[in-house]
Amino acid sequence: MENLENSTDCKETASPLNNSGSLLNNTDSRPDGRAMGFVLVHAGAGYHSESKAKEYKHVCKRACQKAVDRLRAGGMALEAVTAALIELEDSPFTNAGTGSNLNLSGEIECDASIMDGKSLNYGAVGALSGIKNPVLVARRLLSETQKGKLSAGRIPPCFLVGKGAEQWAISHGIPACPTEKMTTKFSLSGYKRNKRKMELAEQVEMKRKRQSCEHENDFGCLEPVRDLMVEGEENNSACLDTVGAVVVDREGNVAAAVSSGGLAMKHPGRVGQAAHYGCGCWAENARDISLYSTAVSTSGSGEHLIRTMLARECSTAMQAENTHQALLEAMQNKFISSPFLAGEDCVLGGVIVLRCCTCGEAQRSEDIQAVLVEFLWSHTTESMCVGYMSAQDSKARTHISRLPPGAVAGQSLAIEGGVCRLGTVCFGLRCNHTHT
Amino acid sequence: MENLENSTDCKETASPLNNSGSLLNNTDSRPDGRAMGFVLVHAGAGYHSESKAKEYKHVCKRACQKAVDRLRAGGMALEAVTAALIELEDSPFTNAGTGSNLNLSGEIECDASIMDGKSLNYGAVGALSGIKNPVLVARRLLSETQKGKLSAGRIPPCFLVGKGAEQWAISHGIPACPTEKMTTKFSLSGYKRNKRKMELAEQVEMKRKRQSCEHENDFGCLEPVRDLMVEGEENNSACLDTVGAVVVDREGNVAAAVSSGGLAMKHPGRVGQAAHYGCGCWAENARDISLYSTAVSTSGSGEHLIRTMLARECSTAMQAENTHQALLEAMQNKFISSPFLAGEDCVLGGVIVLRCCTCGEAQRSEDIQAVLVEFLWSHTTESMCVGYMSAQDSKARTHISRLPPGAVAGQSLAIEGGVCRLGTVCFGLRCNHTHT
Repeated sequence: MENLENSTDCKETASPLNNSGSLLNNTDSRPDGRAMGFVLVHAGAGYHSESKAKEYKHVCKRACQKAVDRLRAGGMALEAVTAALIELEDSPFTNAGTGSNLNLSGEIECDASIMDGKSLNYGAVGALSGIKNPVLVARRLLSETQKGKLSAGRIPPCFLVGKGAEQWAISHGIPACPTEKMTTKFSLSGYKRNKRKMELAEQVEMKRKRQSCEHENDFGCLEPVRDLMVEGEENNSACLDTVGAVVVDREGNVAAAVSSGGLAMKHPGRVGQAAHYGCGCWAENARDISLYSTAVSTSGSGEHLIRTMLARECSTAMQAENTHQALLEAMQNKFISSPFLAGEDCVLGGVIVLRCCTCGEAQRSEDIQAVLVEFLWSHTTESMCVGYMSAQDSKARTHISRLPPGAVAGQSLAIEGGVCRLGTVCFGLRCNHTHT
Repeated sequence: MENLENSTDCKETASPLNNSGSLLNNTDSRPDGRAMGFVLVHAGAGYHSESKAKEYKHVCKRACQKAVDRLRAGGMALEAVTAALIELEDSPFTNAGTGSNLNLSGEIECDASIMDGKSLNYGAVGALSGIKNPVLVARRLLSETQKGKLSAGRIPPCFLVGKGAEQWAISHGIPACPTEKMTTKFSLSGYKRNKRKMELAEQVEMKRKRQSCEHENDFGCLEPVRDLMVEGEENNSACLDTVGAVVVDREGNVAAAVSSGGLAMKHPGRVGQAAHYGCGCWAENARDISLYSTAVSTSGSGEHLIRTMLARECSTAMQAENTHQALLEAMQNKFISSPFLAGEDCVLGGVIVLRCCTCGEAQRSEDIQAVLVEFLWSHTTESMCVGYMSAQDSKARTHISRLPPGAVAGQSLAIEGGVCRLGTVCFGLRCNHTHT
């Protein structure tokens, strides 16, 4: 809490956000021993047009509510995070589950993973078709892992892909869902638009090559084609990648999950960070060598998030004292300027991070309710839509974080966050930080 | 070098190994400026029966020779490591490429990945059928990544799975290969034997449940069924998981690769550590913050190797001064006793590790030939088959490392290794260390 409040890097901009109700400065807490926990969700780091802002915020709000409903009913972090993900996947506006980007062949192939900070168990699915809620398959894989070995001592799988994953899901009671039902008007029109763009780009490229042979360096007559990854374009869903959530429950256990339809026009069989251990999500309860419990969920360009293992890197960074500074450094040094992305001039991604402890005052009072939760989000994309809610809040807060005017997406970053003490008064502030 | 020589933990047992020609104490070096580099390969951590030891050693020898041929022809680490992997995959005795374990449906589904320490680029395939050399697809994915973006600014994939991976491979000129051609008499008989075991285990389980209802705790009449994962059994290939190689070239660049048919009787679509970033292989050239170049390839129970991210953990550990001690601690603390495998009483895996630098004397003389290479292997399985060769050696050395008598597989470990100075005299020793 004091890390954020005392940070000289932070510019408090509480009032405009309070006016819009999108950031937390809540003294209307309702202490209740049974209603404990906190959830932070995201509906993708990418570009969220003003015209659709309401929809994105609305789905984040509903996802928070679902998670909190589970927490209030006595559910643990793993159940709550799953409930949030199902709501995010079911929205036709997010690029996960229903409404996912279509791949090159016009099909939906989803990635999802989930991690339990208490047991450190993990489940993931990649390139999964025909299942409405990929997170349910990841969750079931995690549960099956906890049951121990299969017949004849076989180790249960933690990661399944493609047709095999679909068959496994169905054989474990998760119903099949025809792709047509998961395809929306929005995803289909996006596919057609992107296909035209690709064809145009390939024609331009061929023409360029031909001209290059005939008249070297004479490209003047060719129209440039905008990249699918270019942000800030209305109706461009290519970057609205991945949804996710992080939760802490009444016992201080953390869990994280992530789900994605992947990049628009991806090659069939392409698996992104959402199915990749350490890259899409991470959750680790405090233990001997780590003071804090941490949970992370990422979003953005899958290949960049895989090669930088951003979820795990952010989790590790969160063991430092100053969360804001630690996340800033992680995003700057382990992502934008990562040696693993040395050739990339545009590194697009975002994270939501939660860290909690029962240290300080809470430790002294030995009061299980006094769990201190710090929550942050950071992104290098134009925008990132988040929502958060404590089990004691009457409703979720949502917010679309945007890079400040003039900041360059893929090279700059924004960080915001807040603090919440479970069981007592909640409060928060906004920190904005941009680097170019 | 001196780390290994001076270590009090090491018991030199050079003479018996020299007699069998399986460990390096080579003063017959042939300095040659063009012939520079070193390769270390493995044919799986698992159980290598005495009767088949010759075959495993032979394929390791051939794989080393192929890598060295590339190095001698001026090839870089990435080319050499690919050449070694192709040889290992083509052997009908290894569980990779031809001769891979069959899955539950009697099909071959392979995982493979490759990493270039210079560019830090990476490529991987998972659950891939119908391609003779999965490593070639991983290698091609890596190369395509280096070419930059696809049409309309799409980011090229670094990880493809299943049917999509197969289609991508074929469209990039890698020929298809019918599964029947990759299935061997050995893999087919293993499948039939394992299937019978599974059926028997399931019958016993059902009978146990029935008896449990009728006469609680009265299991006396039931025959125990041996686990598929139980080691030390002739003709048991369930654990002979994964092949791999690590290479350093004349410029000091490192590369690593890994390839696997996965666990016997795995569920279709199951992806193991061989296709998982940070888990199957790792390669990282020395740079500002790291003094040493390191390369790692792993083998064993995929799920354990994924959840512990063993390849990357070992690579990080290799920045410590004493390689032997660092690897011992990594295997003990980050694998056998890892909090990520808290519920597991039998943690099966192995690694080969290479680290090199031009520090010390070499740095002073500024002689590009004087690259110091330390190479080690460690395993918790009954045995691990390795081979190694310097580009200046006339032939490869091979060795089957075994846990000492009485050591418990899955709870104990063995470490061995050697040192080689490229361009001058090669020498080495054996270190045996077992912990229970």
